[in-house]
Amino acid sequence: MTKIAVLGAGSWGTVLGSMLADKGYDIVLYGNNEKVNQEINESHTNEHYMKNWHVNETATATGDLNEALSGAEIILFVLPTQAIRSVAQNVSKILAQRKDKPLIVTATKGIEPGSKKLISEILTEEIYPNDEDKIVAISGPSHAESVAQKDLTAISCASTSMKNAQKVQGLFSNDYFRLYTNNDLIGVEVAGAVKNVIAIAAGILVGKHYGDDAKAALMTRGLAEITRLGVNYFGADPMTFSGLSGIGDLIVTCTSVNSRNWRCGKQLGEGKSLDYVLQNMGQVVEGATTVKAVHELCQEKQIDMPISEAIYRVLYQNADVDSEIAQMMGRSPKQEIRL
Amino acid sequence: MTKIAVLGAGSWGTVLGSMLADKGYDIVLYGNNEKVNQEINESHTNEHYMKNWHVNETATATGDLNEALSGAEIILFVLPTQAIRSVAQNVSKILAQRKDKPLIVTATKGIEPGSKKLISEILTEEIYPNDEDKIVAISGPSHAESVAQKDLTAISCASTSMKNAQKVQGLFSNDYFRLYTNNDLIGVEVAGAVKNVIAIAAGILVGKHYGDDAKAALMTRGLAEITRLGVNYFGADPMTFSGLSGIGDLIVTCTSVNSRNWRCGKQLGEGKSLDYVLQNMGQVVEGATTVKAVHELCQEKQIDMPISEAIYRVLYQNADVDSEIAQMMGRSPKQEIRL
Repeated sequence: MTKIAVLGAGSWGTVLGSMLADKGYDIVLYGNNEKVNQEINESHTNEHYMKNWHVNETATATGDLNEALSGAEIILFVLPTQAIRSVAQNVSKILAQRKDKPLIVTATKGIEPGSKKLISEILTEEIYPNDEDKIVAISGPSHAESVAQKDLTAISCASTSMKNAQKVQGLFSNDYFRLYTNNDLIGVEVAGAVKNVIAIAAGILVGKHYGDDAKAALMTRGLAEITRLGVNYFGADPMTFSGLSGIGDLIVTCTSVNSRNWRCGKQLGEGKSLDYVLQNMGQVVEGATTVKAVHELCQEKQIDMPISEAIYRVLYQNADVDSEIAQMMGRSPKQEIRL
Repeated sequence: MTKIAVLGAGSWGTVLGSMLADKGYDIVLYGNNEKVNQEINESHTNEHYMKNWHVNETATATGDLNEALSGAEIILFVLPTQAIRSVAQNVSKILAQRKDKPLIVTATKGIEPGSKKLISEILTEEIYPNDEDKIVAISGPSHAESVAQKDLTAISCASTSMKNAQKVQGLFSNDYFRLYTNNDLIGVEVAGAVKNVIAIAAGILVGKHYGDDAKAALMTRGLAEITRLGVNYFGADPMTFSGLSGIGDLIVTCTSVNSRNWRCGKQLGEGKSLDYVLQNMGQVVEGATTVKAVHELCQEKQIDMPISEAIYRVLYQNADVDSEIAQMMGRSPKQEIRL
């Protein structure tokens, strides 16, 4: 029976872990909250993250990384971006004492502040230097709440090694969760990370009472600028962005009430301050952090990202939303496809 | 003062005409419903198509094509697909008596049954054989109801002549309606036409109570198969499909209650019959016609379009929606980007 260590017992980690346990794998969740671990082990619930939802009873949770990793063939990272590097360092130390090289899968989306590195770059650096092939990223439209309800879900599964991508595709697929392989690991990760910035913008438009046309225009032009960043800064394949990790995830993040970034934007659009919104959110708003990295990347390589830059100014330079919108609509005429 | 003849006084023609009249152009709408024309001229309303909405008072309507075209520099087609060829033939006869060659703009989306030709192909054939450059297509996420409310809107404006695309871009743009030029005329039209099939599928998923993940997966995989059709059958540029006429329009058509195709699908998902739904719709459901052409195109060139083919079977071969969904989720594992 394949053992999978799921690092992170938040909503997405718990749901993925439970879904994989449903397939018969041996699942151990690793989390740093003793009470959550105990709740998963004893009541098979994780109420703080997944209300009224039952975790597969064969899945267990632990605060001991050694125990979680012991015998695991797959190590699945579902941690917040800021926790990735330190946990990866600990994983690396533990794996140094083993002969096998478990496959590393990441379901985390983000860019590391400071280094501006993607999750797969951090994991490669810390765990398998010079062996990027052992990293697989899964990314796409998949809210934990929807997957928990067995909504039909399709996501990308990317690696520089097609063999490893296919392995994860086979392990994770079931009759409501379908994975599509992709060899553009970097593109899949850029798309997943930057979409949260556009989701904040989508929320702002709703807070400002704009309608369906505006939402669709924002997502499409948002996709165009994310693609521009991916191609010019990271060397990604432009076609990746029209896939599940790109526009697919952007759609769900920009239209679902389950999206924290969208909810944050909506409140900003209604006139609330960023400080107020973040304090009342209770969970991380990744887009508010990501936009800082995106701003630096744009500046560094002179990449034209008008929506992300406007969000940066609204969040951190006190810019007025209405004037930013008017300015954007009044830009000089443009050609649609500019990579 | 530039005169623009707007052929078609349905909701989109009326709103576009009125919006252009707001910019100061001389607008004449051409429609075959005498009562609608009279209402536009006398009450400046078009209640059947646009409830509680006011048409710019300088815009007039006529049933006389000669009068509509007289002196027009731009002829804007906003007719249903099935009316395009016959009206184009009449336009051609009238223009034969003139020395100038007005620019032809099409806002109609569809594929002609039988010939399987796109609107620009019909217009070129009938009006300007061997001068495709004079045709410009506008297409993108722009429901008449949203534009009427001055929602922020962005669309593609495509022509094989960049000069003519730019001319339309300049003429049509205002502070809430923004056009992006594109030189892939065929791609823009394929995207606009086929999206209605996917919108029916999106409605079916809602009728069946599937959630946000399913909707996003459907739109993304729908985009992938539309792109495959565009590239392999029509020789379109794959990047066009991630633009406003592609995913942009798909988003608005698959998520807006203003979309007839989506509403049709939703009722089918709730178990109503196609005949019942079409009879109670009151307006044309383009996707139900388009899917027949798409089915023939797929068969002819062996193009893999699983969603469109499933919709064809559900609409015209009495296939069961639930088994079609199960079959789709259980297809053999696939790579994400396959053109």
